[in-house]
Amino acid sequence: MKIAVDAMGGDNAPEEIVKGVALARTALPETEFTLFGKRDEIMKYMADFKNVKIVHTDEEILMEDEPVKAVRSKKNSSMVLAAKAVKDGEADAVFSAGNTGALLAAGLFVIGRIKGIGRPGMTTTLPSLEGDNDTFTMLDVGANAESKAKNLHDFAILGNFYSCNVMNVTNPRIALLNNGTEYDKGDKLHKETYQLLKDDQSLNFVGNIESRELLNGKADVVVTDGFTGNAVLKNTEGTALSMLKLVKHAIMDNGVTSKLGGLLLKKSFGEIADKMDYSKHGGAVLLGVKAPVVKAHGSSNAVQVKNALIQLHTMVDSNITKNLSDYFASHKAEQAASKVDNQE
Amino acid sequence: MKIAVDAMGGDNAPEEIVKGVALARTALPETEFTLFGKRDEIMKYMADFKNVKIVHTDEEILMEDEPVKAVRSKKNSSMVLAAKAVKDGEADAVFSAGNTGALLAAGLFVIGRIKGIGRPGMTTTLPSLEGDNDTFTMLDVGANAESKAKNLHDFAILGNFYSCNVMNVTNPRIALLNNGTEYDKGDKLHKETYQLLKDDQSLNFVGNIESRELLNGKADVVVTDGFTGNAVLKNTEGTALSMLKLVKHAIMDNGVTSKLGGLLLKKSFGEIADKMDYSKHGGAVLLGVKAPVVKAHGSSNAVQVKNALIQLHTMVDSNITKNLSDYFASHKAEQAASKVDNQE
Repeated sequence: MKIAVDAMGGDNAPEEIVKGVALARTALPETEFTLFGKRDEIMKYMADFKNVKIVHTDEEILMEDEPVKAVRSKKNSSMVLAAKAVKDGEADAVFSAGNTGALLAAGLFVIGRIKGIGRPGMTTTLPSLEGDNDTFTMLDVGANAESKAKNLHDFAILGNFYSCNVMNVTNPRIALLNNGTEYDKGDKLHKETYQLLKDDQSLNFVGNIESRELLNGKADVVVTDGFTGNAVLKNTEGTALSMLKLVKHAIMDNGVTSKLGGLLLKKSFGEIADKMDYSKHGGAVLLGVKAPVVKAHGSSNAVQVKNALIQLHTMVDSNITKNLSDYFASHKAEQAASKVDNQE
Repeated sequence: MKIAVDAMGGDNAPEEIVKGVALARTALPETEFTLFGKRDEIMKYMADFKNVKIVHTDEEILMEDEPVKAVRSKKNSSMVLAAKAVKDGEADAVFSAGNTGALLAAGLFVIGRIKGIGRPGMTTTLPSLEGDNDTFTMLDVGANAESKAKNLHDFAILGNFYSCNVMNVTNPRIALLNNGTEYDKGDKLHKETYQLLKDDQSLNFVGNIESRELLNGKADVVVTDGFTGNAVLKNTEGTALSMLKLVKHAIMDNGVTSKLGGLLLKKSFGEIADKMDYSKHGGAVLLGVKAPVVKAHGSSNAVQVKNALIQLHTMVDSNITKNLSDYFASHKAEQAASKVDNQE
């Protein structure tokens, strides 16, 4: 297996990216990594080059670059070259911690969509704090600002595959994020989507879920449009962070008694931060393009980079792209056949 | 001043509602309260009837009732009678802790919209954990599942008035909830709204805000469509609650040391729960109808009911409905004049 790594994307690149590759190399001894970026800088952080190849380039896509324009004009950037390696069959998957919009554009315009999927969905793994499973999968969390019901139906199918094949969930419970649990809730988009999901017998659709219940383990896949999903994901992050800050202040700003209490609870609080830290499950996956593409958080450290690379390995290993392509092809054939049946 | 109270709405009605009125009566000795509901039950929880009138009715709107249908068919329900009292000039404002959708419908169909406002917006007060002000105002948090840019512009004007006149904020900073901070972010609706807010010189528009930053005190009024606003509000509640639960488990499930730590931090944690408890600022306000309408949480206790009644008092006192009507009338006249100017 070969993984293409954009070594220059992210706040701590290339140092943490390169160190993350070194860690992943130990965990995945059969995998080859190709690092795209400034050779001299990359070499600073890597002692030997077993299973690692460097493709030098001076060009990078910056965080502030306009995504589509950057992908089109910076053809020799580390990100575009990594995507191109996949397109050309020289690698099986792409990793980047760089500009999200640009990686999305590289996925769409360089790697290309799986046939039958109108829009790829950005997919993330979040903690389930109650219930049987430790995590759930949510998409789209921001690949698309506008979506149609058909797109959300595709997201459900994509999420179902991901949950089964990468997260190892049996018969994942699929829920639609909506403004109430009753079947007739939501705007036109969500009402239409509800019907499509309900009518799709291949999905274990459990109905609507409200964002209040998101972390309570009631679904394994939460389907949402990219605008709402983005708002809810960022809100979960922001609120959790605010709460941790409040706890920290409560301990530090309230005298010796509170400080002592904090000291006694240090280990337990560490476990909370760990539970909420969803980067340990890897990065966000751009599902629906012709190869596994993972976007790690811009601030990722080496361990988080390693986790995302292991996640990519699992995706390639489970052959998710081919399975998805086959599924969508047969789904389309079925639909065509049913149309013919209806016309006869 | 007269406040009409739906005594039968909410999980703890009529007991907590009646007790809340008793508390509010002490805080607002000049205000008269009319309680709509079952006389015998109401009388159980009130010792004397100074400044309190009871209008008996056996009919109630239930939480599971279909809102619009319930308001149309249950004309003698406690909620509809309370709304009708305002419509008929017998009361200045309405309080309910009952069915949200029904209260929305009662606001729209019984009390009626302020001229010039296409859609009322459900408005809530949330904690700002950083910055100069302790709270911010967010709307629409769910009155409308679908909105147009014009509606969001109205929400900004409504929120601006509310922040100035009820929350006493000088020159409130208005932000648009969006999926990025740059001006060109979002779907069509949010791009259009950005332009309308930017072009409205009467507003102190500070640009887009992401939901990650919501609690960080960067805006005094956050404008959003009802679908996203509902998702984000419920998500903030859910995530904060989950975090508090995690802290509780961390203390209780980790042996004696953690329990002792928790004991030492009890007071500080109480302060956190208090900071996040936005019910102390009252209920959600249906802004844009011809009288102040407040919806308290279904699970409200007497103190929370009292807070919501004080909030209603402030709104009536600041003459918010008349001010809003005047503003919208003059705004419309200005627009008409500018149209004539452009044609000449």
